[in-house]
Amino acid sequence: MHSFPDELLQGYANFLSGRFSREHARYRELAQAGQQPTTMIIACCDSRSAPETVFDMGPGEVFVLRNVANLVPLYEPDGGQHGTSAAIEFAVNSLEVENILVMGHGRCGGIKAALDPSMQPLDAGDFIGKWMSMLGPVPGQVGQNSLMTASERQTALERISIRNSITNLRSFPYVRQREQEGRLGLHGAWFDISTGELWVMDPESGDFSRPDIAAQ
Amino acid sequence: MHSFPDELLQGYANFLSGRFSREHARYRELAQAGQQPTTMIIACCDSRSAPETVFDMGPGEVFVLRNVANLVPLYEPDGGQHGTSAAIEFAVNSLEVENILVMGHGRCGGIKAALDPSMQPLDAGDFIGKWMSMLGPVPGQVGQNSLMTASERQTALERISIRNSITNLRSFPYVRQREQEGRLGLHGAWFDISTGELWVMDPESGDFSRPDIAAQ
Amino acid sequence: MHSFPDELLQGYANFLSGRFSREHARYRELAQAGQQPTTMIIACCDSRSAPETVFDMGPGEVFVLRNVANLVPLYEPDGGQHGTSAAIEFAVNSLEVENILVMGHGRCGGIKAALDPSMQPLDAGDFIGKWMSMLGPVPGQVGQNSLMTASERQTALERISIRNSITNLRSFPYVRQREQEGRLGLHGAWFDISTGELWVMDPESGDFSRPDIAAQ
Amino acid sequence: MHSFPDELLQGYANFLSGRFSREHARYRELAQAGQQPTTMIIACCDSRSAPETVFDMGPGEVFVLRNVANLVPLYEPDGGQHGTSAAIEFAVNSLEVENILVMGHGRCGGIKAALDPSMQPLDAGDFIGKWMSMLGPVPGQVGQNSLMTASERQTALERISIRNSITNLRSFPYVRQREQEGRLGLHGAWFDISTGELWVMDPESGDFSRPDIAAQ
Repeated sequence: MHSFPDELLQGYANFLSGRFSREHARYRELAQAGQQPTTMIIACCDSRSAPETVFDMGPGEVFVLRNVANLVPLYEPDGGQHGTSAAIEFAVNSLEVENILVMGHGRCGGIKAALDPSMQPLDAGDFIGKWMSMLGPVPGQVGQNSLMTASERQTALERISIRNSITNLRSFPYVRQREQEGRLGLHGAWFDISTGELWVMDPESGDFSRPDIAAQ
Repeated sequence: MHSFPDELLQGYANFLSGRFSREHARYRELAQAGQQPTTMIIACCDSRSAPETVFDMGPGEVFVLRNVANLVPLYEPDGGQHGTSAAIEFAVNSLEVENILVMGHGRCGGIKAALDPSMQPLDAGDFIGKWMSMLGPVPGQVGQNSLMTASERQTALERISIRNSITNLRSFPYVRQREQEGRLGLHGAWFDISTGELWVMDPESGDFSRPDIAAQ
Repeated sequence: MHSFPDELLQGYANFLSGRFSREHARYRELAQAGQQPTTMIIACCDSRSAPETVFDMGPGEVFVLRNVANLVPLYEPDGGQHGTSAAIEFAVNSLEVENILVMGHGRCGGIKAALDPSMQPLDAGDFIGKWMSMLGPVPGQVGQNSLMTASERQTALERISIRNSITNLRSFPYVRQREQEGRLGLHGAWFDISTGELWVMDPESGDFSRPDIAAQ
Repeated sequence: MHSFPDELLQGYANFLSGRFSREHARYRELAQAGQQPTTMIIACCDSRSAPETVFDMGPGEVFVLRNVANLVPLYEPDGGQHGTSAAIEFAVNSLEVENILVMGHGRCGGIKAALDPSMQPLDAGDFIGKWMSMLGPVPGQVGQNSLMTASERQTALERISIRNSITNLRSFPYVRQREQEGRLGLHGAWFDISTGELWVMDPESGDFSRPDIAAQ
């Protein structure tokens, strides 16, 4: 059997001597006060797409859900166990976040799997297949775009999926209501893991473009 | 409606001038080669408990699933959409990780909710309630410990839940098989968000203790 | 037959040349004035948990009762010989201490015995069994927590017992009265014999936590 | 209400930076191995008569019971709760100590109370009175020695009591047996809290004299 991974212990030691030594008062404060992040980020499990890293976020700042391909299901209060829905319910109704960001990224393995009609299930249970089927007929439609390259279809679906997730966020009554009341903003972003570029979604058009951050 | 949060853009600018400027070659490499993290971490959405922060992990190093209270359901290939199961299936069968760490933490809101019998659902759909019911009768049993303080029951359930999640990991056939073949290690850890201490689970006894990291 | 243990004579010689040579005036003074410690500590006999060591206390500072598992019985003036009660009566009514500290510790042999239903009496008289039965049904209840590890149950009962001892202190009329009048404070602490950490009990919640002693 | 006494926290800080910083490995070792002290000391609660101080004993070295006037009752397996007997049972049958030292001291408050026929009970329960009555008619007999000064009677009774405690130790079957088999030694000592002198009891005559420690 494996012993606890050395690289994790070494990393933890770095955390203690580095970040934690500087921020220990903040950790204590956050423990006592409770967490009060104003933003929820829904991101992918991908090792290259960590929100805290990309947005340089410290403790207490962002409530983060990560699943395969940063998907948001439709609001379905059917008595089943829905992890992503539970996190949204908690973030909006308990933490009362002011922003939800759906953060997709390039070269997403889940999106790639959804676009590949010949892909065999990884397991008889085919959880990935069922999970990605949340996108319905969309991957199939995108996949038919033979004039686009595979890479272009990949990026297209990644961004369509972000827009779709934001639409599904609005199917949650309390999300819709708060957005209409101006108490909650929904945002989309796409992170290019190769170039480090962040593309932000225009809420009106749904287009992704790079913000001018030179003056930040 | 809200514009894209300034603090996220500011943070992204910090990332670009800081970390990314140092690691841009690595990002490019990872994009081309594909991600090959050897460790999957299942952590909580809590803003104070980010695995990349606590373990000082950079891009490409850890595949991270985050849900409320870092729960792992039993293996149930019933055709439903199971996000956590999909991530596990992907990590083990596609990425072939060598380690899965279930990382719990102190003052977990999900665990607190599970221990509070009087708590009203945050929404008619009660996703949190259904999600936390994955723990079955366990919170109720822990909650009956009137001899322990509320805080002691909280910590006890956080750790019982980590052990329970690891047990549930083994209900996935491919997890069990790889563990038996010595190709996959399952680990537990509990992060004290107040003191920054990491408690690591002993695989034999299930006890949590602090590793000696002085020599790291 | 054994001669007087050498290590005790050697230790006594160290005391004479070390501590006593520095404090001999104080010893003389204390002999003349009588002892006036302001704190009583009720601790365990365990060789690793000596109050004078842990609190760096010198002569005249603390009145110390030590019994197995630092238990305090209920006030029962039934004419029997009650050593712990006699010490409390003396400390409060004669020495008029201002504080009583119940000091428990990790890996307590008495607590371990109380949690072990299969343990055979050490002797037909079973004094340990009868002594630990002062805890009533509590060890049995804690022992039923199969979800917790043996080590977690041990620590839980050690702390429950400290809280219980403090409750029993209040069953002494003169303790209760003086506490209400603000002339006597009751405190709890748990000493981790492995790490040297002292956990202090919060009088409101009963929770144990480590005080911030950096500034001491 | 009183907050946790500052002098105790300050003393604990001294322990951490002093003794514990030098001996932390020993503490860890003792925690893992369990305590294995070879000597039990039965001493008085008096703040001027701490065995660890007088014998310069560190963690793991001595198992210490402290009660008022370092009394040992007769072996009475009558089903009652007997703290001193429980500690003796544990030390001899579980820890299997090789030596038991009964350590009395000068100016003992309990002995003084026993010698004072006019002394009113400190409380209706009169635990001290009942406890000291363990000495039976002896204090009364010593008290009749009008040719001796009060102080001489005090010292006389302190030493008679030590001899009496040792006799009572032998009423425990397992103590008697082990002593006869040469596996357990019983010792007496009397500590002069004014001069710091240690008087050791001669096992044959019962006389107390000061050992030659110059060569130690």
